[in-house]
Amino acid sequence: MQSAETNTKLNRACLLLALRRYSATVLNMEQTVLLPSLLRDVESDEDEDCFQDCHSATGSSCKDLYDYYLMLKAVRNTVESGLITLDDRKTQTYLAQNKTLEPMLEADPEALFHFHLRGLFSVMGNLTKKSQGVTTKYMDIIGIMN
Amino acid sequence: MQSAETNTKLNRACLLLALRRYSATVLNMEQTVLLPSLLRDVESDEDEDCFQDCHSATGSSCKDLYDYYLMLKAVRNTVESGLITLDDRKTQTYLAQNKTLEPMLEADPEALFHFHLRGLFSVMGNLTKKSQGVTTKYMDIIGIMN
Repeated sequence: MQSAETNTKLNRACLLLALRRYSATVLNMEQTVLLPSLLRDVESDEDEDCFQDCHSATGSSCKDLYDYYLMLKAVRNTVESGLITLDDRKTQTYLAQNKTLEPMLEADPEALFHFHLRGLFSVMGNLTKKSQGVTTKYMDIIGIMN
Repeated sequence: MQSAETNTKLNRACLLLALRRYSATVLNMEQTVLLPSLLRDVESDEDEDCFQDCHSATGSSCKDLYDYYLMLKAVRNTVESGLITLDDRKTQTYLAQNKTLEPMLEADPEALFHFHLRGLFSVMGNLTKKSQGVTTKYMDIIGIMN
């Protein structure tokens, strides 16, 4: 019986904790990365293939670690303020690509609620890892062993 | 200049406020609906067509207002606890229907973050309206004029 309870606990996660963890990780990144310009033209380990393509093509939208650094800080500001820009162009494009979601909003708002809640939790985990990755790479660049 | 600033303010919305507004609306619904069983077999105004189909078919998943009442309370509990059930079957089905989102998670986590944040805000507004609708309909049933 106790084992079943433990399982239930393990299968639950808290959005608020994920948001706080993200803020703390970005703060740590900011305090470590004292010269953000050193991150320019440094590719993320995950994006190596993409980055190689970028160097052979022009006008590509590949991000270096400096772009990630700025993006992670911008997301942190949104997380901490809780403010949503309703006319955000990026999101508009995103929504246009996901037109299939709209009819479902009417059909099952509870499922849509869980979908977005879980999605937000998942993307926060992903961004937290990216922020840790930027910090680790920066320490690597300036020669500090982890 | 001031007009541009006002526009920016109008185009921003706060998720935290939307969540609080939802909790307050559900609390009001709970305090008004003293006999929830009166909501059984009462269709939502929005679902009239669906409800008529249900009465002619068997095994359909149309919701009456009592189902909505229970669903709105369940969502409120999740909102207030902030806990996400990671093995939720409904969400799993939902995610399976939206496989297109997964490659985008890797491609642009910032856009995905805004997509889910905005989506959550939007669905909270929708559920708040549904909760107000249940309260109004209940008052209508017991003969209280709004």
